[in-house]
Amino acid sequence: MTSGPAGGPTAAGPTNSLVDVAGIRVGHLTRDEPGWLTGVTVVLAPPGGAVAGVDVRGGGPGTRETDLLDPRNLVDRVDAVLLGGGSAFGLAAADGVMDALAADGRGWPMVTPPDPARVVPIVPAAILFDLGRGGPWAHRPRAEDGRAAYAAATDAPPGQGNVGAGTGARAGGLRGGLGTASATLPSGATVAALVVVNAVGSAVDLTTGLPYAVGLGLPGEFAHVRQPSQADLVAAQERWRADVEAAETARPGLATTIGVIATNATLTNAQCQKMAGVGHDGIARAVRPVHTLFDGDTLFALATGSGPAPDPGEQTAIMEAGADCVARAIVHAMLAATSVDRAAHGGVALRSWSDAFPSALA
Amino acid sequence: MTSGPAGGPTAAGPTNSLVDVAGIRVGHLTRDEPGWLTGVTVVLAPPGGAVAGVDVRGGGPGTRETDLLDPRNLVDRVDAVLLGGGSAFGLAAADGVMDALAADGRGWPMVTPPDPARVVPIVPAAILFDLGRGGPWAHRPRAEDGRAAYAAATDAPPGQGNVGAGTGARAGGLRGGLGTASATLPSGATVAALVVVNAVGSAVDLTTGLPYAVGLGLPGEFAHVRQPSQADLVAAQERWRADVEAAETARPGLATTIGVIATNATLTNAQCQKMAGVGHDGIARAVRPVHTLFDGDTLFALATGSGPAPDPGEQTAIMEAGADCVARAIVHAMLAATSVDRAAHGGVALRSWSDAFPSALA
Repeated sequence: MTSGPAGGPTAAGPTNSLVDVAGIRVGHLTRDEPGWLTGVTVVLAPPGGAVAGVDVRGGGPGTRETDLLDPRNLVDRVDAVLLGGGSAFGLAAADGVMDALAADGRGWPMVTPPDPARVVPIVPAAILFDLGRGGPWAHRPRAEDGRAAYAAATDAPPGQGNVGAGTGARAGGLRGGLGTASATLPSGATVAALVVVNAVGSAVDLTTGLPYAVGLGLPGEFAHVRQPSQADLVAAQERWRADVEAAETARPGLATTIGVIATNATLTNAQCQKMAGVGHDGIARAVRPVHTLFDGDTLFALATGSGPAPDPGEQTAIMEAGADCVARAIVHAMLAATSVDRAAHGGVALRSWSDAFPSALA
Repeated sequence: MTSGPAGGPTAAGPTNSLVDVAGIRVGHLTRDEPGWLTGVTVVLAPPGGAVAGVDVRGGGPGTRETDLLDPRNLVDRVDAVLLGGGSAFGLAAADGVMDALAADGRGWPMVTPPDPARVVPIVPAAILFDLGRGGPWAHRPRAEDGRAAYAAATDAPPGQGNVGAGTGARAGGLRGGLGTASATLPSGATVAALVVVNAVGSAVDLTTGLPYAVGLGLPGEFAHVRQPSQADLVAAQERWRADVEAAETARPGLATTIGVIATNATLTNAQCQKMAGVGHDGIARAVRPVHTLFDGDTLFALATGSGPAPDPGEQTAIMEAGADCVARAIVHAMLAATSVDRAAHGGVALRSWSDAFPSALA
């Protein structure tokens, strides 16, 4: 709706998605049949891996292989990142990604000279809470789902909305989902993000009906989004109040927004950690409240290193563009989400933003 | 060989093991058949869980569910801790522990009122590197091994030496293993540790042939250990020099010492994190060098809370006793280890301390 920040990028990459960072591949495994609402998404680094960092800001995270990315430690690059539903159970999906990578001879070399049969794939993972939304509590991702997402990974623009790890997502009273966005900088660097928004808080400003971060769009990016009608707004506000009253008698479930930021710049492991931290500012601009005790918000940052190492000013521009890509990806997630009803299977009914505010889409 | 530190404990608990902390159960799953040298160990908290913390000090850790134990975060207790071989692949064993706990209705309650069918078991895990020591690289723990270790958990004193996660352990040029120790304090608190020593560095002082931490034993604990003969010492030193020369032409593999400290005192999540940190001093006294870039040294600390909350002085005594239990457990691990030879299956041959220094055992 408005232009990007002064000095920031004015154009997205060719696909406005994570795969605009050359060499990055994305694969979804979606479980959305009756009784199910979950899935996993694999972000695959180029062969040889990508330098990576992580920042965990939520109060209820579910993670694996994050300690090894501490900049004090040895391993500075990852082969893949696994984002999944299923709460901590979903961490099992990373096993399947590890096995598939090992079968392909990809991973951290453990012997000298390197032997593709003797590697340990580095697959950090973060999960979000979606248990029971499709129905049975036990319908959660398994190792084989990670393997299938890995097999499905391509350099095509990834699907958005309720796919992969975004299948069972909820944000505030609406259906959440998965979104992606990218930006190109005057320096030639490309930055992109892929985020699954699944939050206790809302990604939509209930005083206007618009996603909080819609104003951070690049020129024309959200030109099809306009102020919803008063009737849509009043109806949404009434449903919202009913949801809040119901929630006050219930313990809030764990939520969690998770994602990956990537750039083709050359960054160190520590600089990637910084980029992941600044990326959380993008979540803060797109979701309120956020980083609560019931959100395990976690962002990974990957640098493929095909571009040059930035000076501090350029590094700042890359990080800020990354935060904006995170916020824009959350808007795309909300816009792409579709309504679902799994009440007949013991799950939940979730209305999408587009169904709550049909008048807002041109 | 000498008494404990002034003001410290003068007696071990009844079994001198982790299960002296009432309610704690330990289960091993050992894969030591031909072609294999690995396994996992589950430390099971009492029903309702134990308050827990973690401290990761090694430079090459492999962990899961450690971020949620950050004292800023919501979850402050765990249902179990999984220690495993298999490098990062071994994290899969925690899936089996989670599934088994969930089947038993144990975990963090996710709905109000609590429903045992809707829980998420909290199972932090840390792994050590033992890939290829038994032979094939692919012989590593799987989810079902975690499930089996959970099923085997009892309140009987756990086996020591080359069992569970200690099956494939190596420390310096000798076979490592799993050990445990406990202490009772004048305040009535019980403290204990279970540690798997698997280190780039050595747990044995090659100038004397004795484990570094043998002097930290409680009265009589290591009375059966004496100065080895000069012949044993010279032979061990010659083998050591040959190993060092061979190692200088090879990239050091990842190693990693991991363990659990437990107490019956009432501690907060943050105090448990502090206890885990002080516990690493015990590793420092028992292994040199340690916390290298090739060791993922990680300690968990559990407080079951059946005893009172300590004042700062008592808390210090508990933490220091915990560090000593860690060091003593490492001595027990080295003493209990046995020699093994998997060279015929493509693995390694590892000599135990007891076979390297037969003259040192009364």
